[in-house]
Amino acid sequence: MRATFMYGAGDVRIETVPDPSIIQPTDAIVRVVNTCICGSDLHSYHQRPSTGEGTSMGHEFIGVVEDTGTAVTTVKRGDFVIAPFAWSDGTCEFCREGLQTSCLHGGFWNADGVGGGQAEAVRVPLADGTLVKVPVGEDPALLASLLTLSDVLGTGYHAAKSARVNGRTTVTVIGDGAVGLMAVLSARRLGAEQIILLGRHKDRTDLGIEFGATHVVAERGEEGIAMVRELTGGHGTHTVLEAVGYQDAYRQAVGVVRPGGTISRVGVPQYEDAPIGFGSLFGPNITLTGGPAPVRAYIEELLPDVLDGTINPGRVFDRTIGLDDVPSGYRAMDSREALKVLVRP
Amino acid sequence: MRATFMYGAGDVRIETVPDPSIIQPTDAIVRVVNTCICGSDLHSYHQRPSTGEGTSMGHEFIGVVEDTGTAVTTVKRGDFVIAPFAWSDGTCEFCREGLQTSCLHGGFWNADGVGGGQAEAVRVPLADGTLVKVPVGEDPALLASLLTLSDVLGTGYHAAKSARVNGRTTVTVIGDGAVGLMAVLSARRLGAEQIILLGRHKDRTDLGIEFGATHVVAERGEEGIAMVRELTGGHGTHTVLEAVGYQDAYRQAVGVVRPGGTISRVGVPQYEDAPIGFGSLFGPNITLTGGPAPVRAYIEELLPDVLDGTINPGRVFDRTIGLDDVPSGYRAMDSREALKVLVRP
Repeated sequence: MRATFMYGAGDVRIETVPDPSIIQPTDAIVRVVNTCICGSDLHSYHQRPSTGEGTSMGHEFIGVVEDTGTAVTTVKRGDFVIAPFAWSDGTCEFCREGLQTSCLHGGFWNADGVGGGQAEAVRVPLADGTLVKVPVGEDPALLASLLTLSDVLGTGYHAAKSARVNGRTTVTVIGDGAVGLMAVLSARRLGAEQIILLGRHKDRTDLGIEFGATHVVAERGEEGIAMVRELTGGHGTHTVLEAVGYQDAYRQAVGVVRPGGTISRVGVPQYEDAPIGFGSLFGPNITLTGGPAPVRAYIEELLPDVLDGTINPGRVFDRTIGLDDVPSGYRAMDSREALKVLVRP
Repeated sequence: MRATFMYGAGDVRIETVPDPSIIQPTDAIVRVVNTCICGSDLHSYHQRPSTGEGTSMGHEFIGVVEDTGTAVTTVKRGDFVIAPFAWSDGTCEFCREGLQTSCLHGGFWNADGVGGGQAEAVRVPLADGTLVKVPVGEDPALLASLLTLSDVLGTGYHAAKSARVNGRTTVTVIGDGAVGLMAVLSARRLGAEQIILLGRHKDRTDLGIEFGATHVVAERGEEGIAMVRELTGGHGTHTVLEAVGYQDAYRQAVGVVRPGGTISRVGVPQYEDAPIGFGSLFGPNITLTGGPAPVRAYIEELLPDVLDGTINPGRVFDRTIGLDDVPSGYRAMDSREALKVLVRP
């Protein structure tokens, strides 16, 4: 089959490799119907050292089960399924608490002998815990939105849920990428009535307004902070959903959060140390939360809204390509020509 | 009157100054019955530069109202009252949300022309919002416990409440100072059944066991982290209440918190930058919360338990002195001869 590999920063290649096959009795093989390129893939695209070895890529996919191991009971050949961006057993104490990203026996795609989603097929470990069967077939009108349940919708939703957004909380969303826009949609779904989206790309912030943003702030840094404060009586918002991952975005979050409020991060931090002392988080009693979203926990909750069209998160995809064009898809996302690229292998 | 002033690290003096008097119609004058020395006073005692000017000290006191401004309605001359460690109007949006430490019109003792509690009397701004009348008189058996409502009990309780401790959460408390011990008592009060106290002073950890600690870990650093993990099936505790404020304690908190868990800080951070990236907080979805406790919010809730003897937090005081001995009281706490020093002016 064909699959995507990254050999270093900016070096993405499509290669032919052996088809995946069942190794453990708990495995399933899924033929990928739709996959996509993630904002977090771009961190690798910028930073990965060239080692001469390629790493398989992609962690978001929906597809059809082609084969199952003897121990798999919840999905069968022909089922149309969603794969979350982490695989998990569904039975350990963390999975039972809804934190599948910390599953005791789980893991992530593209590591430990498991391939990636930007490919024609994937071996899915712990298929019973990992895969969610969609109760409809391959409805073309729904595919894009179903694919967002694999990562970006659940990640935006995790930001809002972790921050405990509700009808009484004001919200700032930092970042107009796909996850930021999903955070807007999620905050609206949870009842927030003031949602301030910080972003500079008008086509994206326009989509953010359709998803529920009530204000857009294009200014950055201190100027952007001042704008948010002006919109909130001087105090900032109860919650800040940080969907970027750079330290500048974290500092902006600290600048716009209200005393007693919550910063919820879902952008993968590209830093380790940052201010959390008296002058930033401690003095005003700010809570910092978030992390890799246990999207598996949210699929059942969000799926009905996707199926009945209440939400249409698939609108974040603004380009569709075939697998052979994935390298150009990375370039398009990196140059911000494309917001999020859908791939049909 | 006599009052305590600090002139620099290690330089505490008792001086005679004019009696405080009503300045604003919202003021009250309180004659101090009991005050005390706080672990956070020791940070100044270690670090304050000598400028030739003294700063008044003390932020914990209970006493009797001697005079009130014309606008004060909730307390009157002769009332026995508790003063929380921040003064606040009780009416702004933050006070109404229970975050009196962020009161729009409030402030802290020993600043902005307001004196400190380690004195014979104090001018209390915004007396209606700040002071809580005790429904009993100066009962000698209750004074020490009532005094803890001024800071350490409310601060320990804030740690536990902010971490959402309940009957299903396991708890680590870092620090066997007065606040750490109050955090133990608070976690127990909120129903926690496993409370691991990290501390090395046997007399203090023994008191911690009386307050509800189920395990004591005297080891520090990696060894201490390993001990907590051993006690918790390898995963750490759901909540960590950090009552120290040094970065080592924060790192220990990160080491013993369970994936998906919460670190709640009430020790005033003596650092600004610290690890919060993928390898510390983000990867395992750790929440970081806490800050200066809005103890005013907790006084009414905790007072009945103090009055009826359900809790006896006053046991953290192991030395009682007069005002003239306050300099030696600082020395005793600094050298850890005393856990917490009560002062009767």
